[in-house]
Amino acid sequence: MAPMENIVVQMDGKPGFPADVVGGRTMETPFSVSLSVPASPSSETKLGVHHLAVPLRQARQHSLPSPAVRGSAEVPAVPRSNTARKRDRRFDRLRTFSGRLDRQLSTLRGLSQELPAADLERGSAKISEEDTDDDHDVPTAGRYFDALEGAELDTLRSTEVAVLPKDELWPFLLRFPISAFGMCLGVSSQAMLWKTLESEPSMAFLRVCPAANHVLWWISVALTAVVSIVYLLKVVFYFEAVRREFHHPVRVNFFFAPWVACLFLVKGVPRPEWEIHHLFWYFLMVPILCLDLKIYGQWMSSGERRLSKVANPSNHLAVVGNFVGALLGARMGLRELPIFFFAVGLAHYAVLFVTLYQRLPTNKQLPKELHPVFFLFVAAPSVASMAWARISGEFNNGAKLLYFVSLFLYVSLVVRVNLFRGLRFSLAWWAYTFPMTSVALATVLYASEVNNMLTLTLAVGLSGIAVLTVIGVLATTVYHAFVCGDLFPNDVSIAIKQKRPKFSNILAHLRLPTPASSSSSSANSRTTSSIGESPVIYGHERAEC
Amino acid sequence: MAPMENIVVQMDGKPGFPADVVGGRTMETPFSVSLSVPASPSSETKLGVHHLAVPLRQARQHSLPSPAVRGSAEVPAVPRSNTARKRDRRFDRLRTFSGRLDRQLSTLRGLSQELPAADLERGSAKISEEDTDDDHDVPTAGRYFDALEGAELDTLRSTEVAVLPKDELWPFLLRFPISAFGMCLGVSSQAMLWKTLESEPSMAFLRVCPAANHVLWWISVALTAVVSIVYLLKVVFYFEAVRREFHHPVRVNFFFAPWVACLFLVKGVPRPEWEIHHLFWYFLMVPILCLDLKIYGQWMSSGERRLSKVANPSNHLAVVGNFVGALLGARMGLRELPIFFFAVGLAHYAVLFVTLYQRLPTNKQLPKELHPVFFLFVAAPSVASMAWARISGEFNNGAKLLYFVSLFLYVSLVVRVNLFRGLRFSLAWWAYTFPMTSVALATVLYASEVNNMLTLTLAVGLSGIAVLTVIGVLATTVYHAFVCGDLFPNDVSIAIKQKRPKFSNILAHLRLPTPASSSSSSANSRTTSSIGESPVIYGHERAEC
Amino acid sequence: MAPMENIVVQMDGKPGFPADVVGGRTMETPFSVSLSVPASPSSETKLGVHHLAVPLRQARQHSLPSPAVRGSAEVPAVPRSNTARKRDRRFDRLRTFSGRLDRQLSTLRGLSQELPAADLERGSAKISEEDTDDDHDVPTAGRYFDALEGAELDTLRSTEVAVLPKDELWPFLLRFPISAFGMCLGVSSQAMLWKTLESEPSMAFLRVCPAANHVLWWISVALTAVVSIVYLLKVVFYFEAVRREFHHPVRVNFFFAPWVACLFLVKGVPRPEWEIHHLFWYFLMVPILCLDLKIYGQWMSSGERRLSKVANPSNHLAVVGNFVGALLGARMGLRELPIFFFAVGLAHYAVLFVTLYQRLPTNKQLPKELHPVFFLFVAAPSVASMAWARISGEFNNGAKLLYFVSLFLYVSLVVRVNLFRGLRFSLAWWAYTFPMTSVALATVLYASEVNNMLTLTLAVGLSGIAVLTVIGVLATTVYHAFVCGDLFPNDVSIAIKQKRPKFSNILAHLRLPTPASSSSSSANSRTTSSIGESPVIYGHERAEC
Repeated sequence: MAPMENIVVQMDGKPGFPADVVGGRTMETPFSVSLSVPASPSSETKLGVHHLAVPLRQARQHSLPSPAVRGSAEVPAVPRSNTARKRDRRFDRLRTFSGRLDRQLSTLRGLSQELPAADLERGSAKISEEDTDDDHDVPTAGRYFDALEGAELDTLRSTEVAVLPKDELWPFLLRFPISAFGMCLGVSSQAMLWKTLESEPSMAFLRVCPAANHVLWWISVALTAVVSIVYLLKVVFYFEAVRREFHHPVRVNFFFAPWVACLFLVKGVPRPEWEIHHLFWYFLMVPILCLDLKIYGQWMSSGERRLSKVANPSNHLAVVGNFVGALLGARMGLRELPIFFFAVGLAHYAVLFVTLYQRLPTNKQLPKELHPVFFLFVAAPSVASMAWARISGEFNNGAKLLYFVSLFLYVSLVVRVNLFRGLRFSLAWWAYTFPMTSVALATVLYASEVNNMLTLTLAVGLSGIAVLTVIGVLATTVYHAFVCGDLFPNDVSIAIKQKRPKFSNILAHLRLPTPASSSSSSANSRTTSSIGESPVIYGHERAEC
Repeated sequence: MAPMENIVVQMDGKPGFPADVVGGRTMETPFSVSLSVPASPSSETKLGVHHLAVPLRQARQHSLPSPAVRGSAEVPAVPRSNTARKRDRRFDRLRTFSGRLDRQLSTLRGLSQELPAADLERGSAKISEEDTDDDHDVPTAGRYFDALEGAELDTLRSTEVAVLPKDELWPFLLRFPISAFGMCLGVSSQAMLWKTLESEPSMAFLRVCPAANHVLWWISVALTAVVSIVYLLKVVFYFEAVRREFHHPVRVNFFFAPWVACLFLVKGVPRPEWEIHHLFWYFLMVPILCLDLKIYGQWMSSGERRLSKVANPSNHLAVVGNFVGALLGARMGLRELPIFFFAVGLAHYAVLFVTLYQRLPTNKQLPKELHPVFFLFVAAPSVASMAWARISGEFNNGAKLLYFVSLFLYVSLVVRVNLFRGLRFSLAWWAYTFPMTSVALATVLYASEVNNMLTLTLAVGLSGIAVLTVIGVLATTVYHAFVCGDLFPNDVSIAIKQKRPKFSNILAHLRLPTPASSSSSSANSRTTSSIGESPVIYGHERAEC
Repeated sequence: MAPMENIVVQMDGKPGFPADVVGGRTMETPFSVSLSVPASPSSETKLGVHHLAVPLRQARQHSLPSPAVRGSAEVPAVPRSNTARKRDRRFDRLRTFSGRLDRQLSTLRGLSQELPAADLERGSAKISEEDTDDDHDVPTAGRYFDALEGAELDTLRSTEVAVLPKDELWPFLLRFPISAFGMCLGVSSQAMLWKTLESEPSMAFLRVCPAANHVLWWISVALTAVVSIVYLLKVVFYFEAVRREFHHPVRVNFFFAPWVACLFLVKGVPRPEWEIHHLFWYFLMVPILCLDLKIYGQWMSSGERRLSKVANPSNHLAVVGNFVGALLGARMGLRELPIFFFAVGLAHYAVLFVTLYQRLPTNKQLPKELHPVFFLFVAAPSVASMAWARISGEFNNGAKLLYFVSLFLYVSLVVRVNLFRGLRFSLAWWAYTFPMTSVALATVLYASEVNNMLTLTLAVGLSGIAVLTVIGVLATTVYHAFVCGDLFPNDVSIAIKQKRPKFSNILAHLRLPTPASSSSSSANSRTTSSIGESPVIYGHERAEC
């Protein structure tokens, strides 16, 4: 009964790719980004990763726990295993090549001697004991709502126990959420805005320099490329984590963001003489259509993810892609397909608008207080007005109706803006700022149609607010990245358990918050989740990217 | 205590009209169609029906007498009466001329000697005892939801006890549901499709023979006539059953089907030179308007049948009639009234679309899994797009928006089509196939407006799918009619009890599933419904129609 | 046991302004209008009100109560107080200058000797004991629904205890609800109707005399002025009561009524040559926009007053203002701002229409039975159709769609009109009649566009119904004012307690329904609300206005 003797600190994993690619421009931060690319055989060979596991073992008896420091990559407390060169098992459940598959592959290749048989057995036993339903299935939508809270459903409720250790920093890829594409939305929409300010005749008096568009566009391209590559790596190495993000009722909407950002990039391409080929548009609209079919189909026909349950403002992201596509397509000279996407968007926007306005009692996760997520209300009608104006060939009454709705919603939020204070920053805020840019863009178009002092003032004012907001969010991002070092906190929303934890688990969890102590707890807490169970805890190399 | 002795086989009822009229073309089946036209004096004389009741009575001892049959006017268990020539009482509650009325009429005509006084007394006593609320009232909407399940609310829950015997075949008219008009919808819309394929210039390259339209139209006319006549007979003889269908939350929407089918017939009339008079249109739109007022009024102002409770995809049938009427009216050259019906349809379609998409938790009966009923989603927008195109004089943007919405919904369902397998066939499926024809029709019109290879391919493809689907459903219908002989199963959805059965009833019902054994049950099962109580089983003459 | 001995008639308060201004034309009634302007120092001096409290006290012992007659102005039962010249404390909680503030002011001015110290102490004790949360906060939306019932949420549930005495007539201002502006809506819309009947070419055959418009308009102006002044006095003297009306889920919508009535007045101004300046329009639309932002913002972002909770037909009043504004603005030659208001109105009307049609189970207060409030359903689309026709410059298809929707809803209600019988009249009915006028107006415009016998008949018929309805409601109002004398009953909906009364309170309240007995009841009923506590009850002077 002396589990705590076995403390193994193990440096596990090296970055599988150059740090300057991983971190990118916006990620050159001093905070810890531990790129522990998992040790699946295929990836090991392909990417040339060597696992330099350096277990540090210390005798510990009845020790009150070395409280694992949140945010540090090294984590001790390995109670029973003596083996050096060990892989970090705790994140296996989210890995593309997770434990069982890994072992199967290893066995096939005769590599089973790499893992001691005892460990294999214990692993299997554990899996059969408690992970049977947890391992490869994704939590239901109801579980997400039960286990998480907050406007973005990203905070674990106090009664919940995460499947991943909460008190240490996870691998960087696991902490890199899909909402990071919000940054791309924010910046690339700015590029669009500056291009429009430069080109629209009504704004000619501003004499905007084309350089602004140029610079912003290239920044957007670079940012989108970096974010895409990093997320692709996550798809490759932690497919389970991506799958859980895709099933997350709020996060799933951000899967539209990459494609919308690309549409923004195509729309905001600096020189109009660069003729973007129609194929780009088709290429970008196919995934949007597939996501539409998937998401809207779930709203209508699924029991678990029906709209009256999952409706939240971030659903607007699922709608706005259609309008952006329609806008760009019409701009490119296409005629029928933009109307198709506009129609699909409009029908589902109407449904969403009514549903969100009603605030059905079943929409549990709608935040009680206002939140930047509400600004997404403004995005869809403003982009839709631009799309309809482009489809119709003029800023007609239909486009005006949509535009004015977005303007009213915007004013309605702005007069309550002091309610937005005191909220925790997250990367998703970038997505919540692009609606401001959209409404500014629509106002510029509107001012070209109705050209008077009031509309020009409005256009300039809204553009200014949009620019300032983006600068503000940028500053906050930089602050969180460089000063606080918490731009990418542990993404607990993908680490919830599939089933409601038993009361005993919660109790044990609350009593014994650290892994070191929990393992010593008692014999009857065998099921206290991976925290209590994981006997080997690996450290992660700090990637100074 | 010898229950099995008391077997009474009674040949009851003769078909009241020639079999070739009843069965029609699609009903020439070997399965049992027992046309037991009830024995009300008036109908007896009119239709010349003779009831050859041959009660076989056997001695019964220690039998607890005439266990009062809950809710039925029928009298099985004939302990005291010796009279031959007895009527089947069990279906009286659904008869237009049910027991009490019958007796009153009999009394008026001095025919009371036909029924022994004791029976009359016992009947009255029974009625006053337990049938006070059951007899002539219709179950509330809530009861339908509580007692039935399935996408069409046509399956009795296991905890429920039907008021009619479940384990024998009911009279044919009682088993003939209003949803049989779905067949008319399916076939007549095909006639329309072939007419359009023949006449639209964009489809000229197909060189469709006018004969297809001719043949299909005449088939549709004949089918509609037959179904109408049979259902009219049901209205005459089993008005209570019709009333219960009208109060059934799903079935009520099928009351639009006869009129919509007629509109389809008028629209698909083979030779355009046959000028259909406007009066036909007015004649057909009046019942639709009345139903609109009734049904939509219930949605809005009724507590029991409000939309948040009764919303289900079959409500689309209640909306689509307006669009079909608008389409036909505009086609006939009317101007304002089609817009009226289009407006009414559009407003309520918007409400319905949002409500169904939300899948409110109060919409209990929405099927968990996909079901052909979901194809009704496609019908309304596609017909609406055609109607708006006809009203506007061109396939303009408004019509395109509606058309594309229907196309998206169609694709959204088709990609999930493998979920539709394994469902029990019902006649209502015919109604669920006409949306496919509608969308094919709209696509043909659209292809005439936007004439390119893609749209032509789409038009031909969707028409092909529609034709194949109808052929498939036809084959299934024929299979069920001729091979399985279960095209018209007992329609339990009109035979639910008005009140929740007591637990003792359910228990007794579960314990004693067969009528033969039930009569021996015990003294404390006095209220175990007609199933448990009826010791006399009537046979039905098989009508070889 | 001699209850009837204790008759105290007390003449309290004098009207603070000339009676002919207060009562106005429609209020020249013999029923009791007690204008007890409260005794705050400032108002006393300003308006010169003298409280001539003449308490007549008689000995009472164990008397069972003189059951106070609801609606009568005489109130007996003055058990403990001997002081002459006393202020009525019971309405202090709704006064702008309520008790505590009053005393503070008094103390500041050295006027505390006016009130005996004992009374002050007792008052403070009472406040500290039970009024801590009741005094200056407004009940939550949930409380309104819990405590009140009826389509207008104006009847106290039997389990509730009001904070004001239920069994005597309150001061007139407290009984003057915001829904009194409904009268202005009803009459001024009639002025508009007659102006349109006179000016539209399609109605020229009626040869309507311009005098009708003239007379109605001036009556409307006078009525609006009187109602506005009286309500302004309520705002000044009973701001708490106004605040409670503003938080009342039904009443809040009537705060749009004053501005809409003014818009009607501007629209119906007799001579078109009187050019109303645009500034009027801006001046009237600013409060409507502010109310829009407030109310719609609550629908969307508030937890307590979200739409799925507060939706009721009177919300239409909150939408119709936008359409009226758009109509008038477009009529005045403005272009963009009318579209803005139309867009805002349309978006929220769509949300409201769907929500009300669904009748969500959370919308508790929707009346089970039909009610005149349902006629508000007709108002928004008919006004919207006129607005869109004016914005578009012609009665185009969009306007027709809206018009036909209103027509259908109208017919849908009219065929159920016999369900409206037997309802208690209230001033709000005036607001429920203006939709009839609106639909008549829209029909006249439509008849100018589509000029045939049917439309002309419809226009004349609907106008006739509207006129007859208004006359009917007018007659009912006069009847209630002059004959019954209960036009302004106690407005219990502003007098609900903030918290659910304890069961003991309810019990005590039910057991001891009258103040006379309650004071003698027992020591443990100290908290039985103001009814049981108020030792001094004042009579009110009858204002023969």
